[in-house]
Amino acid sequence: MDELPGTLGTSASLALRLGQSLFSIASLLFMCLDVPFYSYTAFCFMVTVMGLVMAWSLTLAMVDAFTILIKLPSRQPGIVSIVILGDWVLSFLSLAASCSTASAADYLINSSNPFCDGNLCTRYQLSAAMAFFSWFLTFASSLFNLWLLPSL
Amino acid sequence: MDELPGTLGTSASLALRLGQSLFSIASLLFMCLDVPFYSYTAFCFMVTVMGLVMAWSLTLAMVDAFTILIKLPSRQPGIVSIVILGDWVLSFLSLAASCSTASAADYLINSSNPFCDGNLCTRYQLSAAMAFFSWFLTFASSLFNLWLLPSL
Repeated sequence: MDELPGTLGTSASLALRLGQSLFSIASLLFMCLDVPFYSYTAFCFMVTVMGLVMAWSLTLAMVDAFTILIKLPSRQPGIVSIVILGDWVLSFLSLAASCSTASAADYLINSSNPFCDGNLCTRYQLSAAMAFFSWFLTFASSLFNLWLLPSL
Repeated sequence: MDELPGTLGTSASLALRLGQSLFSIASLLFMCLDVPFYSYTAFCFMVTVMGLVMAWSLTLAMVDAFTILIKLPSRQPGIVSIVILGDWVLSFLSLAASCSTASAADYLINSSNPFCDGNLCTRYQLSAAMAFFSWFLTFASSLFNLWLLPSL
């Protein structure tokens, strides 16, 4: 089996997963740290999805690290299919969360809501941007693994 | 070449395209007809994206209809690749538009904005739901065509 970069168990995949974890953690921090995010549905959805993405990416980063270090045979078609499916669902969810948060933050800023005092809404926008990057990396992972699937 | 249902030039594909056009037109009507939608970025984005989806779906519906009626050979790999790419980009855009509109409408309703008088925001929500259905059908088309691609 040739080593297509970015597929499960390669160092490129490990880098993608670490990037996803980093962006989702950053997004969670921007959203949650000392901010009353639970007042709006969109922000709660965002926190839920980013929590899922973080857990998923960290787990798969560990799988990649183990595969690289001790050459575990992790590339059964079943496992790769589950990883692709999970990546797809999470990438759609994170795109949706990122867009809803961006839209709600934009609305809050435009209506100069008192909720936005002290750069709070800039933090929501940053959080949405981080979620967008996380979507992009999740989608890339999913495409690389989809590319691998027919050769298994 | 076996006829995989849902791929370019089959009657299932024609049905999918007609569904997409229908939902995007419904979404545009709910959003635009007699409603000042241009006050919010999310709603303008929605109208732009749904206009694109409508044009794209109607064009491809015509291509499908011609292929079924007069047996045009439309299944070159190049054409199918362009269709897949267009479907993917449009499906992401319509998911994004649908989520931002839903989030902005939800916010407007929760804040009992005077903008929402007379069921206006219910119309925004309906428009977002229609865009979501249109996303689903565009995504299905894209998956069917992606499935066809390796056999060309």
